[in-house]
Amino acid sequence: MEWMIIGILGPEGSYTEKAAKQWNKMGDLHYYDDIQDTVEAVLRNEVDYSIVPVENSLEGSIPLTLDLLMEHQLKIAGEVIVQISHCLLSKGRLSGIKVVMSHPQALSQCRKFIKMHFRNTEVRPVLSTSLAAKLASGSKDIAAIASVESAQRYGLEILEENIQDINENHTRFIVVGKETPHPTGNDKTSIIIYLQKNRPGALFEILKEFANKSIDLTKIESRPTKKFLGDYLFHIDLRGHIEDKNIKETLEKINSKVGMLKILGSYPAAR
Amino acid sequence: MEWMIIGILGPEGSYTEKAAKQWNKMGDLHYYDDIQDTVEAVLRNEVDYSIVPVENSLEGSIPLTLDLLMEHQLKIAGEVIVQISHCLLSKGRLSGIKVVMSHPQALSQCRKFIKMHFRNTEVRPVLSTSLAAKLASGSKDIAAIASVESAQRYGLEILEENIQDINENHTRFIVVGKETPHPTGNDKTSIIIYLQKNRPGALFEILKEFANKSIDLTKIESRPTKKFLGDYLFHIDLRGHIEDKNIKETLEKINSKVGMLKILGSYPAAR
Repeated sequence: MEWMIIGILGPEGSYTEKAAKQWNKMGDLHYYDDIQDTVEAVLRNEVDYSIVPVENSLEGSIPLTLDLLMEHQLKIAGEVIVQISHCLLSKGRLSGIKVVMSHPQALSQCRKFIKMHFRNTEVRPVLSTSLAAKLASGSKDIAAIASVESAQRYGLEILEENIQDINENHTRFIVVGKETPHPTGNDKTSIIIYLQKNRPGALFEILKEFANKSIDLTKIESRPTKKFLGDYLFHIDLRGHIEDKNIKETLEKINSKVGMLKILGSYPAAR
Repeated sequence: MEWMIIGILGPEGSYTEKAAKQWNKMGDLHYYDDIQDTVEAVLRNEVDYSIVPVENSLEGSIPLTLDLLMEHQLKIAGEVIVQISHCLLSKGRLSGIKVVMSHPQALSQCRKFIKMHFRNTEVRPVLSTSLAAKLASGSKDIAAIASVESAQRYGLEILEENIQDINENHTRFIVVGKETPHPTGNDKTSIIIYLQKNRPGALFEILKEFANKSIDLTKIESRPTKKFLGDYLFHIDLRGHIEDKNIKETLEKINSKVGMLKILGSYPAAR
């Protein structure tokens, strides 16, 4: 078995670490501070793969991850789906909490809980849930919203479990590397397209090509091109591998119709 | 002329205030702390209209605004496009800055500037750019990333102008109220659809209806249903008014094909 170096969004105890442990390859973990640094570690050859969050079932896509996939020449080599269960963690007691810290997405996922219990308490967004836990380990005034794992890692009490507004909460992580894995028979392919012209029906004509071949789109998401307001790229995930004849031919056809087609990679589907 | 009460995302000096001043209706401004409170002020009958950001040309959609449109029975009554130009503001000197504060989207829009000048300085996300400016007025240690207007409002020096990574930077704001304005001849309509079945081609069939009638889609954006990962709603903006025969008939046809069609309103297009 290959032994890898895997870059993840840290610090220790993060949900990304959970994703790395769920992934089918093993390796030494290198921790990075933010998504950009984690992704670019692959380009700097510090790691073989990097794992970053791309989408949450409550909050939607992580725009920075999508934008970095557009910006860099990397390949998606895998995906991992992790169940998210936020806890309120502290060294102090609930009544003594002066600041609640977590990643903005986690704060947003616990919006109702925070409004109910911390109406007059400072709520401070920080870079990651596990960083919040790390900071909470230094003061009884701080509570972190983070995972059970980070409670264990930083010696915090779990004051309350499962505090997200909606119980069903999963995050999809992607593994980025430099090569496309071989087909497994249960794969997904991610692409980005830019439609040459923003005319009625331009997106429709692209989707027609997929529909004609019964290719299942699992996701379609628009992102700004950053050129001007109202100008978009489309991130599309579909079932199948780029080496499948059906997928290959359809993408070739689409390539001739769009302003840009970027293939982000084919990789084994999670679960 | 009618005199209104308009709820906006505050405090004074915010980009939303700029949007309110650009809008074609005049009124007293009521300031709210966050997007949710601003939108829900209409439901609480505290204001006639509320104005909140919905989309930025660099960062994309504001997910919370989209989710609140899904959650509540409100009508979009207008849109305003505001040019965004971030400045670095402080009472102190550049060399003495210990904390840089701004709204997370503004921090993200100035990512390169921050990385270059504040590598070892604390960067703290706060609720709004104008709140950051307000806080910076209290200490020479704090710099805010905010508008020229908020420099004037809070008596701050402009240490650096136009610090966003990409110069072309616009935010689209929506005006929410309770009624749909009459057609003006240059209108947009916003809808949300939920496809009954996540089968290949489901979205394609909906877009076909628009394409058949040459209805111009200006935006299509997916948002999670929050039920499970991979289950999406589609927010669609199109040219035309719900009272146009073409639009009305197409939406009726689509309504019979989807799991849910929610009409968020028709309103005069900006510019």
